[in-house]
Amino acid sequence: MVPKWVYRFDELDVATGHCANDWDEVRGLLGGKGANLADMTRLGIPVPPGFTITSRACNAYLDTGGGLPPELSGQTSKALAWLEEETGKQLGDAVDPLLVSCRSGAKFSMPGMMDTVLNIGLNSEIVDSMITGGKDARFILDSYRRLIQMFGTVVLDVPDEPFQETLREARRKDNVTSDSELSAGVLSYVIDSFMARLEDTTGRPLPPDPQTQLSMATEAVFRSWNGRRAKDYRKASHIPDSLGTAVNIQTMVFGNSGANSATGVAVSRSATTGAPHIEGDFLMNAQGEDVVAGIRETNTIDDLSEVMPEQYEDLTRYARQLELHYSDMQDIEFTIDDGELWILQTRNGKRTAQAAVRIAVDLASEGTITRDIALERVSPEQVEFFLHPQFDADAKQLALDEGTYLTTGLNVSPGAAVGLIALDADLAESWAQDRHESVILVRPETKPDDVHGMLAAVGVLTSSGGRTSHAALVARQFGRPAVVGASEIQVDLGERRIVVGRTVINEGDRISIDGTTGEVFLGAIDTKVPDIDDVWLMKLLEWADEVRRLGVWANADHPHDAELAVKLGATGIGLCRTEHMFFGTERLPIMQEMVMAANADERRSALTRLLPLQRRDFAGLFRAMDGYEVIIRLLDPPLHEFLPNRDRLADELTDLKIRLTKAGTLDEVNTLFAKAEEVEKVLERVEALRESNPMLGLRGVRLAVLSPEMPRMQIRAIFEAVSLVHEEGIVAKPSIMVPLTSVIGELTTLEAVARDMAATIRDEKGMEIDYRFGTMIETPRAALTAAQLAETAEFFSFGTNDLTQMTFGISRDDAEHSFLLDYLASGVLEANPFNTLDREGVGGLIRNAVEAGRHVRPDLHVGICGEHGGDPASIAIVDECGLDYVSCSPLRVPVARIAAAQSALRLARSSQEPAAM
Amino acid sequence: MVPKWVYRFDELDVATGHCANDWDEVRGLLGGKGANLADMTRLGIPVPPGFTITSRACNAYLDTGGGLPPELSGQTSKALAWLEEETGKQLGDAVDPLLVSCRSGAKFSMPGMMDTVLNIGLNSEIVDSMITGGKDARFILDSYRRLIQMFGTVVLDVPDEPFQETLREARRKDNVTSDSELSAGVLSYVIDSFMARLEDTTGRPLPPDPQTQLSMATEAVFRSWNGRRAKDYRKASHIPDSLGTAVNIQTMVFGNSGANSATGVAVSRSATTGAPHIEGDFLMNAQGEDVVAGIRETNTIDDLSEVMPEQYEDLTRYARQLELHYSDMQDIEFTIDDGELWILQTRNGKRTAQAAVRIAVDLASEGTITRDIALERVSPEQVEFFLHPQFDADAKQLALDEGTYLTTGLNVSPGAAVGLIALDADLAESWAQDRHESVILVRPETKPDDVHGMLAAVGVLTSSGGRTSHAALVARQFGRPAVVGASEIQVDLGERRIVVGRTVINEGDRISIDGTTGEVFLGAIDTKVPDIDDVWLMKLLEWADEVRRLGVWANADHPHDAELAVKLGATGIGLCRTEHMFFGTERLPIMQEMVMAANADERRSALTRLLPLQRRDFAGLFRAMDGYEVIIRLLDPPLHEFLPNRDRLADELTDLKIRLTKAGTLDEVNTLFAKAEEVEKVLERVEALRESNPMLGLRGVRLAVLSPEMPRMQIRAIFEAVSLVHEEGIVAKPSIMVPLTSVIGELTTLEAVARDMAATIRDEKGMEIDYRFGTMIETPRAALTAAQLAETAEFFSFGTNDLTQMTFGISRDDAEHSFLLDYLASGVLEANPFNTLDREGVGGLIRNAVEAGRHVRPDLHVGICGEHGGDPASIAIVDECGLDYVSCSPLRVPVARIAAAQSALRLARSSQEPAAM
Repeated sequence: MVPKWVYRFDELDVATGHCANDWDEVRGLLGGKGANLADMTRLGIPVPPGFTITSRACNAYLDTGGGLPPELSGQTSKALAWLEEETGKQLGDAVDPLLVSCRSGAKFSMPGMMDTVLNIGLNSEIVDSMITGGKDARFILDSYRRLIQMFGTVVLDVPDEPFQETLREARRKDNVTSDSELSAGVLSYVIDSFMARLEDTTGRPLPPDPQTQLSMATEAVFRSWNGRRAKDYRKASHIPDSLGTAVNIQTMVFGNSGANSATGVAVSRSATTGAPHIEGDFLMNAQGEDVVAGIRETNTIDDLSEVMPEQYEDLTRYARQLELHYSDMQDIEFTIDDGELWILQTRNGKRTAQAAVRIAVDLASEGTITRDIALERVSPEQVEFFLHPQFDADAKQLALDEGTYLTTGLNVSPGAAVGLIALDADLAESWAQDRHESVILVRPETKPDDVHGMLAAVGVLTSSGGRTSHAALVARQFGRPAVVGASEIQVDLGERRIVVGRTVINEGDRISIDGTTGEVFLGAIDTKVPDIDDVWLMKLLEWADEVRRLGVWANADHPHDAELAVKLGATGIGLCRTEHMFFGTERLPIMQEMVMAANADERRSALTRLLPLQRRDFAGLFRAMDGYEVIIRLLDPPLHEFLPNRDRLADELTDLKIRLTKAGTLDEVNTLFAKAEEVEKVLERVEALRESNPMLGLRGVRLAVLSPEMPRMQIRAIFEAVSLVHEEGIVAKPSIMVPLTSVIGELTTLEAVARDMAATIRDEKGMEIDYRFGTMIETPRAALTAAQLAETAEFFSFGTNDLTQMTFGISRDDAEHSFLLDYLASGVLEANPFNTLDREGVGGLIRNAVEAGRHVRPDLHVGICGEHGGDPASIAIVDECGLDYVSCSPLRVPVARIAAAQSALRLARSSQEPAAM
Repeated sequence: MVPKWVYRFDELDVATGHCANDWDEVRGLLGGKGANLADMTRLGIPVPPGFTITSRACNAYLDTGGGLPPELSGQTSKALAWLEEETGKQLGDAVDPLLVSCRSGAKFSMPGMMDTVLNIGLNSEIVDSMITGGKDARFILDSYRRLIQMFGTVVLDVPDEPFQETLREARRKDNVTSDSELSAGVLSYVIDSFMARLEDTTGRPLPPDPQTQLSMATEAVFRSWNGRRAKDYRKASHIPDSLGTAVNIQTMVFGNSGANSATGVAVSRSATTGAPHIEGDFLMNAQGEDVVAGIRETNTIDDLSEVMPEQYEDLTRYARQLELHYSDMQDIEFTIDDGELWILQTRNGKRTAQAAVRIAVDLASEGTITRDIALERVSPEQVEFFLHPQFDADAKQLALDEGTYLTTGLNVSPGAAVGLIALDADLAESWAQDRHESVILVRPETKPDDVHGMLAAVGVLTSSGGRTSHAALVARQFGRPAVVGASEIQVDLGERRIVVGRTVINEGDRISIDGTTGEVFLGAIDTKVPDIDDVWLMKLLEWADEVRRLGVWANADHPHDAELAVKLGATGIGLCRTEHMFFGTERLPIMQEMVMAANADERRSALTRLLPLQRRDFAGLFRAMDGYEVIIRLLDPPLHEFLPNRDRLADELTDLKIRLTKAGTLDEVNTLFAKAEEVEKVLERVEALRESNPMLGLRGVRLAVLSPEMPRMQIRAIFEAVSLVHEEGIVAKPSIMVPLTSVIGELTTLEAVARDMAATIRDEKGMEIDYRFGTMIETPRAALTAAQLAETAEFFSFGTNDLTQMTFGISRDDAEHSFLLDYLASGVLEANPFNTLDREGVGGLIRNAVEAGRHVRPDLHVGICGEHGGDPASIAIVDECGLDYVSCSPLRVPVARIAAAQSALRLARSSQEPAAM
């Protein structure tokens, strides 16, 4: 059978038949563009007629080293004859010739790689006779100029630069800024110059014969598949070299052919808000590129209804028809050529996050798509957009134009913030509270001492630290926009200013930071907050809740966080980090007292004062989470975290010693000496607590086993709080979680403490406390011995931050500014395992631990509370592992809800798909 | 059928029949002691006749709450009648009565828990008539005194203290120091006093009827099974409560009954040297406890051949007979009662390490035991004993008596050493080299700079650091005895002295350290070195090599280590740590230059100078290991390890700054300023390299991926060395090992470097380098992704030090002085996982990695090179996991050989045993 190399746009059914009704194969055969044009043709949309030479013809041409298949010429001639009949025009006609374009079109879009030749069918003779025949000379000459230039560069490999040089010269002559404004006279000069250039470079003129033009252009497009640029692009995009490109030959239509012509773009629904009406721009008597270039002021599509009401009607109808056909909002290019409306292209339109949500919900509500499809149309990132203030796009552009951009750091906590620079936490707090100023806390790095300042600030900026630095974690936890590790910034605490390059910015000056992008600007940039209460988002998240299998809980340490989490849809607290409760101004001194305690009595005295505070903390949480489970993790961090930084203490001591050598009076000596002694005492304790690898040191359950007073106080506070809120009619569901377990003995030790305390409370209050007891799984050994742990633990919560660090043997804080960057750049690692869960290593541990744990305890409740709990790709992995819930920071709850729904849909689909052969 | 509650010693065959020939069940029935006595009786050994009341009778008694089985009385009477016939004496006879002992005897020995009543059968009347009949009054009265005392405390629950008080008073009266020296007169007084005491406390006298004495004693022994002490002991020893104890009624014999009597102990072979002749001690006319108490000077067993040649002959014959019967050296208690030799007990004898080896080898050579059994008779610790000098036992006791003991630290590298204290490495080196003194390097901790001093020293002592501190690792590596972390020692570098409590010891004073025990003494203690060339040990190790499946390789970084390893039986190098090659005086400056390099050129310049040195290093190793595989690990440690300690630099800088403020002249200022600048530059680099968790930081393959110049230099040095020694006829078998892999991309990157270098050498030298490429498995992720790694790696070597740290999330250096001690003390951990491989967690990773790796690459070669490679319990675990070899420090090679053999025997046995039902 003779292969069919050419398909007319109206032959889609034939192609579909040849491809066994596989649309993917049709796109392979005709290319994406060809298939799309044929598809629109079948729908009865007015597409300029044409035909497609298949990608198989391209492959045949390339395989034979440049020989066109023998039947191709005949099939092309036949298609051309049909085209002439269809359009009523003849190729080569002197007065009103058929003009065609010749465009590549591969299966997958390769923007900028496409070779195109327009206006095929012109030559000097025809141009002359057309002008003579009354056509607009400027229009005809410009079209001819373009043909020569494209044919030269695409087909004959002439460099483009000399053509551009000629055009620049021409614009100077005419004193205009764009090529489309050139006068007919100058265009004639340009054409002569172009033709001479062609002959000089190649020894050949533009072939005057339209048929020759067409077949040479076709071959050039075929060859372009193996051009350097195209090959590189395919390699980077993982597009197979074997696909080849199709070629589309299409009748030219012109939006610039007269007063009754126009060209424009339209979307079937608002790309900004998603509102269900068409929007767009057009220009009368213009070409498509003029609309894009923005040289002339465009008209909105509403104006079209007035100047060309009939065409407007048609356009609206076609837009709706295409939207229904493709089940999504369409971005359409159209041209009106002498009153006739042509649709040149349609594709799914780009849209804002708000529009994406509304369009998905509206389409589902209208019945155009299912709710499942609506859920998959909105990315988790788009949902996240609703949660953080953003720079107003115009205001940001203005700032960029005005040169107030300063630097970019790590975008660790999303959202934009504007405020006065405060260089220490106390000042930030006082400006915020006393002067009601918006403040941005700027520090080299932050420490627990700084938390009150971070809470008072609207944003945080540091010059050092990584994605798990204290600043990043706390900012994310409390939803403060933050940029950290902006290493170009020098924070000069002595002079109370920051320096970025040559720019000096004083404390109290205003800056703007964008935690979503990491950008920092001098001065204020307007921000706006998208609306989390958006009705369409609410609806979409409700649908998500119906679909997802995973529970979505939140990490929250304070009642207001818990309330926010519930508002955003959380149905439990998966992680309450009790240590964060100790960083408050009121508690830190007591905590430091405990750490500095010389003996158990002093330690107990401090704990006694902490007990009522902790009880209040927990009672607040239980009230906010009435009826929902609250997992409270016992004290986790190493004790030195509650003391000042060692280096700062050492510097202070050195300074005091130097000052002592210079002291003048005895009084001065005595004061300095006393101060030095005090600093030395704290420094000694810090030194004693110092560890070579604190990550692998004395913290978590290890502290609790060594000094059981602390967990005993915490568990008492939890149980007493349960009893307290019980009297208020609140249902508290506490779970006690042990951090950093690696040996079953740790768990049984703490379980006994909890059981004893429950008995004590039973005696004291006459109340039977209903609680669950479980463990973090954050050491590899905990995961490996999950079967043992599940004998004692009623639940597991994977702490994937630490688990990832220990499984890889990588300290995140050290690595993210160091070799991890190189690993990601060189491809040694495909993704940062601290952002997206490592499926093979850490994921393997999780899978096995869940399986082994449930084997021992079938109702074992399992979740994840590391940062991965809010990451969509990681949520998909833990969904596969069979976890019961994910727990993330409150502001990521909506993101997790949609991600969990999408994961559920994906899993349902893959379980339905037949297994691969 | 009437149960048989009583077995005569000559009824062993009956018991064996009842127990279906199961010796274990016989021991359960008759108790260990009863079974042993019966066994000796069957052999025709002269055991004082008697019978055993079974443990079943005990259980029946206890089950019924204190009722003796009805048939027991009849069976006991029958056995007594037989005993009277056998001995020709009557219980209750006035002149020469039968006296018996009544002893408990459970299945498992419970030393100190045994209740015993001796001399049953005496009463006042009998005692009087015996004395009247001419028996030695002192002897008879003493026997009677003992009966009353034991009967009182054991049967009637009278406290022992008043009896002791009376004895103290009696000794004062007679002015003697031991009870056996009391005069007849005073003994009469003691007896009256004891009898009064009995009546006062219990209202009952000693029952005069011998039958009653016997049955009451039997019941008391039964009851003692449920005494508090016995129960606690069983709980601690995991002995089931249900076993019950048997009771042995045995004729009394007396070594103190006259001039023709004696008592003593003998071993069938020398317990000190293992030489095959009996050794022992005896006393004429004495009791067993007199021999033990050491009050009278004992005679050696050789003397017995002169004073009682016949009995000596018999004893020698019986010793040989028992040794053959029990297939092991016997420790025998004997008594000669009026010329008649009785064997009271025999058991396998304790022995020194040397004796253990010689006895096992001799017994196997004689055909008494198999070689396999000989291998299992010698513990790995006994083999280790041969490798290190030890304190002479007498000299150490003398030192303890003289109070020169100072403190005990961690026993990290075994062996004893004596030398002058040197407080820095340079001094240690100069004293050793110039003054030919034995030196002990004493430091707060050691650093790479100190290695030349450690090598010059005979021992190392530090006041801080754990089992993997630099000092511990290097000392073990080079076989220097070392005690580290002796925290009671203050090293005062300023005053050049150390202080321990109130004792001040100056540099240059002599101390003795024992790395086997961790003890430190002031002054010199004589040491002696057991002999590794011991012919019996050599023989035993040869047998071990025939049995074991695991290869035994060594960790060695220098040719002399490699030579020692080969001498000790290693057949490969499993780990050459190339970084140790850079700590030499010659190389460290070049290495520091590389680390301080401002740019790649400077770095390359340093590497160029290191290349010939490395080539020489490797060539030396290849020569030492001709024909054996040598696994060379690429540079592993973080770069800061090659620079001075940060704190020391900071202190130095502070000091310089303070001195600057006091500087008098401009010259002085300039000098100090220049010095401060220099220190500051190094400090800056150290700060830049500083990491919060260096264990999880930039080291190992991560360094190699970031700066491939370094591995390229090392691999070039390896290949050039192969080519160099090839010309000398040496067969080098190099393997390149990548440290700290966690991602396959790291391995492929380095594999490409090696392949490229092999091609370069092929071009340069025309030689095809035959090498293997593999990886350490020391991160959990490497183990979890073993299948991926095995695609590229030809071998795995488990680095279980790091793997354990990361799997547990425990930094060994931090933990071993901290919570790990508490964990071990409280039983949260059963064993220190850094000493003995954690079977469940780390072992699970190893098992899975081996399986997954071999699935991909069936000939994957797998070993272990962590410290566990030399630990017998860990060797057993990795043998189960199917590893090919273990690699340990050279001096542990013999230990590993025996441990591997024992593991192979155990595995063979367990694979033959039928599966549990």
